[in-house]
Amino acid sequence: MSTATTHASPRVFVGPLPEALLSEAVLRGGGALVADMSDADMVVWNDGPASLAGQLHPGIKWVQLAAAGVDDWLASGVIDSDRVWMSGAKTYSHIVAEHALALILAGRHRLAECARQTEWRPELQGQPLDCAAVLIVGAGGIGRGLIEMLGPLRTQTVAVTRSGSATPGAERSVAFDELADEWSRADVIVLAAPATPATYRIINSQTLEMMRSNALIVNIARGSLIDTVALVDALRHDRIGGAALDVTDPEPLPSGHPLWSDPRVLITPHAANPRDARLRRFAERVTDSVSRIGSGTEPAAVIDTKLGY
Amino acid sequence: MSTATTHASPRVFVGPLPEALLSEAVLRGGGALVADMSDADMVVWNDGPASLAGQLHPGIKWVQLAAAGVDDWLASGVIDSDRVWMSGAKTYSHIVAEHALALILAGRHRLAECARQTEWRPELQGQPLDCAAVLIVGAGGIGRGLIEMLGPLRTQTVAVTRSGSATPGAERSVAFDELADEWSRADVIVLAAPATPATYRIINSQTLEMMRSNALIVNIARGSLIDTVALVDALRHDRIGGAALDVTDPEPLPSGHPLWSDPRVLITPHAANPRDARLRRFAERVTDSVSRIGSGTEPAAVIDTKLGY
Repeated sequence: MSTATTHASPRVFVGPLPEALLSEAVLRGGGALVADMSDADMVVWNDGPASLAGQLHPGIKWVQLAAAGVDDWLASGVIDSDRVWMSGAKTYSHIVAEHALALILAGRHRLAECARQTEWRPELQGQPLDCAAVLIVGAGGIGRGLIEMLGPLRTQTVAVTRSGSATPGAERSVAFDELADEWSRADVIVLAAPATPATYRIINSQTLEMMRSNALIVNIARGSLIDTVALVDALRHDRIGGAALDVTDPEPLPSGHPLWSDPRVLITPHAANPRDARLRRFAERVTDSVSRIGSGTEPAAVIDTKLGY
Repeated sequence: MSTATTHASPRVFVGPLPEALLSEAVLRGGGALVADMSDADMVVWNDGPASLAGQLHPGIKWVQLAAAGVDDWLASGVIDSDRVWMSGAKTYSHIVAEHALALILAGRHRLAECARQTEWRPELQGQPLDCAAVLIVGAGGIGRGLIEMLGPLRTQTVAVTRSGSATPGAERSVAFDELADEWSRADVIVLAAPATPATYRIINSQTLEMMRSNALIVNIARGSLIDTVALVDALRHDRIGGAALDVTDPEPLPSGHPLWSDPRVLITPHAANPRDARLRRFAERVTDSVSRIGSGTEPAAVIDTKLGY
């Protein structure tokens, strides 16, 4: 018996704005068609939750979102239990991991300080990452990609996951509830976990207190993982070495915020997953999802509303 | 027959200033001793050429220098043919390669521009290195180390060597005299070759003219490999994308030089091989050299005055 008799390729609405790259991605998906919303049984949505609210009809069985982290989608209440919702999780992992590596190296090599100079200051010497202890909080696609990139850099890498199960390439793997022992052992702390109640302000005055004086905090996840007031306070008292943040809380970080003027802080404007690269990667995910739906196999990154990702 | 009967462990003067880490490194070298200059047959020199001039006596058979690039030693005339001179070449390769990677990623991800902001500018999005074409001029220890580090970043890497012989990990290897075809193919150009007549101002108005408009030039070798006036001119006319320079010509780069104020330029103050890391690595090389001399095997990085390294 062929699955083709029991599973039909989806008819897909791409929106809210038409996007040729995404429509082409649908058509590459083994028989899937591009359709109007009224005829569609699947939606590919290249925007946030506000514009989708109230648009779905009962015939829509699948929704493919572009976002990798869906905390704002869950908070919006738009995600319901009437259909399958899929995120862009892991689609962008490699690119975001690369940005994390860029921020780690920039922090260790004091590149933000160097960039702000207008004269030769030979005392601005960094610390190689070579032999440093790197704690990676969250070993999903981004964390695993980063661990692979750190391999030739000879770091000692500890991966933190919900269960603590072994992560390929990491020297050790620990569970979230064993984190208390790890803060004091890390030269670099990378936040690569989804924004959930369990990770909310995981960097706070208590955990900052335990860190090494040279600790570099890198956040390419969500601003809510850091208590920003506590971070500013820790920097002011030289309790940690610095921070490199692609995401902030509040975001955007307001002008005049003390993080802008701290020489040990580098901020990139939520740019770890740049627009051009993101769209190309999302198109690949769209092709994969419509193919899987057409052949009756489980799509990647189905959202689990209980887990929050 | 043991080689111990024909080769004696050296008696080593460490200078010009005593340095415990280096003396300990000598003593770890299988029977080697630390000696005064008058009693020594080997010198470990942790300084530049000026302080060594005129100090060596005929009994000194080996001199171990700390420097990896010995262009200034050769220019000084201190290196003679009366003994074996050894450089620190390849000792620091891994650390310098790491700095090169930091500069490459900073350039692609626009980190220097981000570091100079005091407000959230979401348009400051970089380009992942993923799939970029990287041209590495010089595939010695640093170039090879960098190629290994670029592996997980999925670049297309071309290595340039004197002979063009195959370089492990590079997609292609070309000889120096085939370089003319390569400038226009590279998104990133990394200078990792020694300063020799063949590499003098290898980046000049002619080669800059051939480059892609997004080309990023990274120099962790020597300032003399770039015609700085031509580089400033190319940037002024948007002929290339940017530069990340650990070495400059002139060096130190004077205050007020146009490179300091160009948003696409990142300058680090000859800091690719930071002092603390350098001394630890040099100590390892000292142990290796005295051991090899004691056992009658060829030391690493014997200087070839004709090749210039």
